[in-house]
Amino acid sequence: MSAIPQKADLLLTGGYVLTMNERQERLVKGAVAIKGSRLVGVGEAEALKAQFVADKVIDCTGAIIMPGLVNAHTHETLTRGLAEDLPLMRWLQEICYPLEKNYTAADMQAAALMNQLEMIRGGITCFIDIFRFADAAAAVARESGLRAIFSPQIIDEFSSFGESLPRTERLIKEWHGCCDNRIQVWVGVHAPYSNSPAVYRQARELANRYGVGLHTHLAETRDEVRLIAEKYGKTPARHLFDLGVFDGPSVVAHCVHLSEEDMDILARQKVGIAYNPTSNIKMAAGIAPVPQMLAKGCRVGLGTDSNLSNNNLDMFEEMRWGSYIQKMAHNDAGILPAYRMLHLATMGSAAALGLDKEIGSLEVGKKADIIVLSLKAPHLWPVYTDRADNVVEQIVYSARADDVITTIVDGRLLMEDKKVLTIDEDRAFHQVQSAAASLYERSFGQ
Amino acid sequence: MSAIPQKADLLLTGGYVLTMNERQERLVKGAVAIKGSRLVGVGEAEALKAQFVADKVIDCTGAIIMPGLVNAHTHETLTRGLAEDLPLMRWLQEICYPLEKNYTAADMQAAALMNQLEMIRGGITCFIDIFRFADAAAAVARESGLRAIFSPQIIDEFSSFGESLPRTERLIKEWHGCCDNRIQVWVGVHAPYSNSPAVYRQARELANRYGVGLHTHLAETRDEVRLIAEKYGKTPARHLFDLGVFDGPSVVAHCVHLSEEDMDILARQKVGIAYNPTSNIKMAAGIAPVPQMLAKGCRVGLGTDSNLSNNNLDMFEEMRWGSYIQKMAHNDAGILPAYRMLHLATMGSAAALGLDKEIGSLEVGKKADIIVLSLKAPHLWPVYTDRADNVVEQIVYSARADDVITTIVDGRLLMEDKKVLTIDEDRAFHQVQSAAASLYERSFGQ
Repeated sequence: MSAIPQKADLLLTGGYVLTMNERQERLVKGAVAIKGSRLVGVGEAEALKAQFVADKVIDCTGAIIMPGLVNAHTHETLTRGLAEDLPLMRWLQEICYPLEKNYTAADMQAAALMNQLEMIRGGITCFIDIFRFADAAAAVARESGLRAIFSPQIIDEFSSFGESLPRTERLIKEWHGCCDNRIQVWVGVHAPYSNSPAVYRQARELANRYGVGLHTHLAETRDEVRLIAEKYGKTPARHLFDLGVFDGPSVVAHCVHLSEEDMDILARQKVGIAYNPTSNIKMAAGIAPVPQMLAKGCRVGLGTDSNLSNNNLDMFEEMRWGSYIQKMAHNDAGILPAYRMLHLATMGSAAALGLDKEIGSLEVGKKADIIVLSLKAPHLWPVYTDRADNVVEQIVYSARADDVITTIVDGRLLMEDKKVLTIDEDRAFHQVQSAAASLYERSFGQ
Repeated sequence: MSAIPQKADLLLTGGYVLTMNERQERLVKGAVAIKGSRLVGVGEAEALKAQFVADKVIDCTGAIIMPGLVNAHTHETLTRGLAEDLPLMRWLQEICYPLEKNYTAADMQAAALMNQLEMIRGGITCFIDIFRFADAAAAVARESGLRAIFSPQIIDEFSSFGESLPRTERLIKEWHGCCDNRIQVWVGVHAPYSNSPAVYRQARELANRYGVGLHTHLAETRDEVRLIAEKYGKTPARHLFDLGVFDGPSVVAHCVHLSEEDMDILARQKVGIAYNPTSNIKMAAGIAPVPQMLAKGCRVGLGTDSNLSNNNLDMFEEMRWGSYIQKMAHNDAGILPAYRMLHLATMGSAAALGLDKEIGSLEVGKKADIIVLSLKAPHLWPVYTDRADNVVEQIVYSARADDVITTIVDGRLLMEDKKVLTIDEDRAFHQVQSAAASLYERSFGQ
């Protein structure tokens, strides 16, 4: 006596399912069923196969089925690896400013193609971007299928390189909620040292008027803390709090240098915090007090930052180094263990972006944002799934972006068996090469 | 009027050739010709194609041809990811000792399969291993085709877990110089705190008697420096120097805590130093003074350490983090730039192991130890090869082990187009899984 099977669109079966749900459930032979854009089943493979008939079934034997990774802070830049190993001021003045001045919407389109292709390949299913010409990037996201939040970066001080509040408002009207709410537009403000209090106040007001979030950089360097103290007699976090910036959904990137009171403010205001370990180390910013933030109940997620300061968008590398540098700083091998890091990169980032009701874990009713990781790689051996389950340890401490074989957002296959289905890679490569060469020529040519 | 073409066995052509030679030559459209185990041509693709006819030609258009990476310190361990996030003493007593006690030659064979497969996949063409049952590992290397130095790890204090001098001598006789000198055997001594002065003296004597090198750990932790100071009133480096340990070819791993005088000793004695950044950070050992060592003329190479403390053997990740943590520690974005790191991982490690006459760069007459990296990956875009050449920056700051598509040692293809030709991967996986499960059962089962 068996029930009539339900209809599903897609069944991933036979894999090791890492739900990342509150009970931290793992299923050694599990499956997930997808209908439309949502999960309709998560459970043992045999039970789900009896419960559902699906148009398409992907056999995931020997692979891991887990929630997509959520990138809580990035800029979709184009000029990766162009000028490395320069002191900050030379880098800014000789490289960044000429490039910024000559950057166009066409460059942004190429950059978005490159960045989104890399994210799909690396199992990132959702990201928040703070950069320029967001309409061009949003148009790419509409095609690529990724879940994305765009927050055009307003820079008060150098207005020619930044975005503006009126343009952001136009963008919200045009793009916010697009593609069944897969694409959002937030208000982006660069940083407390590059924007006046007036801009921050207006930005919050605009965000609240449209019911969207606000994204900004905060307390990234010691210099910033010093500058803001000199100018306003406060910490950067206190400064933004006093301006009312946190009176609505907000995500702040970096937070390397926070006081105890800063952390209390961010926790109380439910501000999302993006931890960007690679960028912070490479730029010599410091090590963010993540264990303390978590102890205070802050909403911490994980981000790659841009390909100028990382240089890849590999969230696996980000997870392990996010843990390693804390082990070093605290001289404690037990700090930020593997599961905690994986939680930061999924549920943590989702909560930071206010999306934890919809994504971040594999649960019936949530959006089907899912990745499949192959374990057919010697750097992930041996695999214990019984008493000594070490799957999460292999993922966090040894896996790489390249281990992702399948990427699904809103129930749609963006990559299957390492083939990206939504972006033509060859065309994207040529477009990126040509845009990058042209931008270089315009910026530095005679 | 053209010369009669010479005969070669293998021609790699059309790729971007990074020679890593003294003139730092790069060829945008280059080629290399191989005859037997050696390079017979390195130059412009068109010129080489006119100069050589080869049995096999591999088109490397859009890829990078470069020297294989040299891993200057590893242990081919089996139990990756089994016990993470534990404090050191609990990890040693509850996990490591039971596993060590039950470790067998069969386990070592499985471990060697896994480690060597990972190294071939990741573009490591040569490594030095300090661990156990080296005959089992050497037998795997004979088949895998990798260039390897085995230095069985002698631990005086816990003799049942370590190797011995008589067994090392037998191994030298049986294996040293095997496979046209592709496999070497050195004398391995664990560390100054786990071995008596007598063992170190006898080890050096044995090494010199057979004309082989000596490998040991040195100055890894503050605890070690304190212990050796209490016991001998010296630094670890001075202690070994006074024992005569450096009176012959030596490679020392870690060197996180060195005095100025220590660095002078190591430079003067031409001791190879393996820099292991990931392990040092993950284990909270500290950051080795690599810029200072280099300024003093020390022979510094790069190593992954074992999969227990890393956890992958990805020399690309090792290169970039080897640079990033120094940028952080010295608050200097210009320190240990990309080319320097690539040099450490190739010529630097080769020189540390005393192999720089034979490997480490692409030069006519040297051994053909070569890797090919694909650039068909969005995380390596954009690629500038003209005025703003950023290929080395993309390799060091963004590439991953998975970008290696072809691995050649002694002129022999070990991997072509991502297919490993010398080890059966499926069989290896099953052997690794079964050995790891059995070792776990024997160590922790009821």
